[in-house]
Amino acid sequence: MRAAVITHHGGLDAIELREVELPRPGPDDVLVRVAAAGCNNTDLWTREGSYAASAEDPDARGGWLGPLDFPRVQGADVTGTVVAVGSGTAPDLVGARVLVDPALYADPGPDAAVVDVLGSERDGGFAEHVVVPAACAHRVDDSPLSDVELAALPIAYGTALGMLERGGVGEGHTVLVTGASGGVGLAAVQLGRARGARVVAVCSGSKAQAVRAAGADVVVDRGRGEVLADAAAAAPEGYDAAVDVVAGPFLAEGLDLLRRGGRWVVAGSLDGWAVGLDVRRLYLADLSLVGSTMHTRRVFAALVDIARRGLVRPVVAETFALEDLALAQAHLAERGHVGKIVVVP
Amino acid sequence: MRAAVITHHGGLDAIELREVELPRPGPDDVLVRVAAAGCNNTDLWTREGSYAASAEDPDARGGWLGPLDFPRVQGADVTGTVVAVGSGTAPDLVGARVLVDPALYADPGPDAAVVDVLGSERDGGFAEHVVVPAACAHRVDDSPLSDVELAALPIAYGTALGMLERGGVGEGHTVLVTGASGGVGLAAVQLGRARGARVVAVCSGSKAQAVRAAGADVVVDRGRGEVLADAAAAAPEGYDAAVDVVAGPFLAEGLDLLRRGGRWVVAGSLDGWAVGLDVRRLYLADLSLVGSTMHTRRVFAALVDIARRGLVRPVVAETFALEDLALAQAHLAERGHVGKIVVVP
Repeated sequence: MRAAVITHHGGLDAIELREVELPRPGPDDVLVRVAAAGCNNTDLWTREGSYAASAEDPDARGGWLGPLDFPRVQGADVTGTVVAVGSGTAPDLVGARVLVDPALYADPGPDAAVVDVLGSERDGGFAEHVVVPAACAHRVDDSPLSDVELAALPIAYGTALGMLERGGVGEGHTVLVTGASGGVGLAAVQLGRARGARVVAVCSGSKAQAVRAAGADVVVDRGRGEVLADAAAAAPEGYDAAVDVVAGPFLAEGLDLLRRGGRWVVAGSLDGWAVGLDVRRLYLADLSLVGSTMHTRRVFAALVDIARRGLVRPVVAETFALEDLALAQAHLAERGHVGKIVVVP
Repeated sequence: MRAAVITHHGGLDAIELREVELPRPGPDDVLVRVAAAGCNNTDLWTREGSYAASAEDPDARGGWLGPLDFPRVQGADVTGTVVAVGSGTAPDLVGARVLVDPALYADPGPDAAVVDVLGSERDGGFAEHVVVPAACAHRVDDSPLSDVELAALPIAYGTALGMLERGGVGEGHTVLVTGASGGVGLAAVQLGRARGARVVAVCSGSKAQAVRAAGADVVVDRGRGEVLADAAAAAPEGYDAAVDVVAGPFLAEGLDLLRRGGRWVVAGSLDGWAVGLDVRRLYLADLSLVGSTMHTRRVFAALVDIARRGLVRPVVAETFALEDLALAQAHLAERGHVGKIVVVP
């Protein structure tokens, strides 16, 4: 089969289209013919190996969860059709349209830690076929979403849904979303709206229309340089929660935007990870600062339900052929788009 | 009746024993003959008015929730007997032994914000009698605890119980308690143990025995200067939660002691309120930093249940007569004690 592999940690030239052997499912696995595979920023950071860099060793290279084996097929977001199953797996899955949970978990609990991600610790979806554990292949035969739309979901919408869950965001709440034109941010706008929350979204003015179209009730243009004041004006009663992938200096100031008992959920730090807090702000107003990595088994099950019922329609910016993966990743890195970039083998 | 009033923000000389008029209950109030009234650090800070001081105005004086009226009777922790009720209140409360919820809330919800505290915004229990809303007077006729023990509960044990609740501490968990010889800390040790958690307590070595007697499984002596390493060694699998009234530099380092998904609950900052965080620590391990002011209506109801069932026996350090309130507050400020200081009018 054809696969786009990365041969080492490096730039776009580390990506190579190869003819490789068709992978064979183990007893508890299924072989999926990939219909579409979404791109994520983690693909870039894993390719570059920048997760391993530290103050002590800025030149260290590695993936999020440790060293990588090469060649490696990236691609965590996979939808496709089961074409074969392992000896220990019920054959009625053959022919099923599936959305793949990219995570393996530390234990069988609903909120267990993620210990392995598709396309990072094992070969992923930037190929014509991929092997995944049968337990990760969730049937979505009846979803009204297209294959490309489904492939936009796992990482970005799973992460955003995990944040909304950990932030307790529900009907009638007001939620602030930072980085709202990015993958996770836009997903949070759509999923927050789908839960009945009022969404105030922060993004650059050039992307305001797209973010509003995705369901934001109010868009705060960060280009005006008055994010704190504008966000405060958009929710005079305060926010029940914030969904933040930006962090940086805004986080500490932003806590004042929360109403008593509010939750600030953070899953990224595009604007910086060093945050200086006055903890009195937290305890005098019963605020919480909640970290959230990605989804859990429980959150992914909820996401599959959303996909099957078509409760959100993911925004897709562009699709690329498998041989153009390097171009897709270049577009992703440029951040000119709104919505997901998806590869169609 | 006799009452110890503070006549202005200031030192111990601001306290004056006076003969004042017996307060009259409004329609929805009850008049309580005070059996015992606990002392809290907030009494000191409110008397001094130091809550209002800020970087902009270090000389500003006021209470936690705003300016104070004088003369004011302090004392948030009251137990006693109802001796009269207002016109709108059921007379069968007369004669009841009650534990008083010192808080008034913003709305009728179980987790509503506290907007007014007994002994701060209105006259409290350092007097022979006190008027409180009937809804705040919880019957504890059947509690096996003494009046003095009951009077140790509301603020310290309510705050600690709120922290344990917000930290999701339950059976089989391991919890770290800082400032464990203080009022809230010791309450957290006892209440944590009563919930079936394993408690690792941090305090100075001179108080280790008392803290161990209160129920700590392990005591970390902060005098050794190796709190982080010692606390880590006491829970190699990591902590499910921390209950922290100390904050300061230890907080940011201490986050690494939590296991994945752990909660660091903070309700005070004796060691400093400015905290520098690496938010990546929070989101890569799904950690939460949870602020917690004091109790809520729901938490106080749970505390009353604990009191009635005698599930903890509060540690009482000393009792003082009403005329010795200044001495009681002086002892409190010296921090030589372990357990609550209680005034008996």
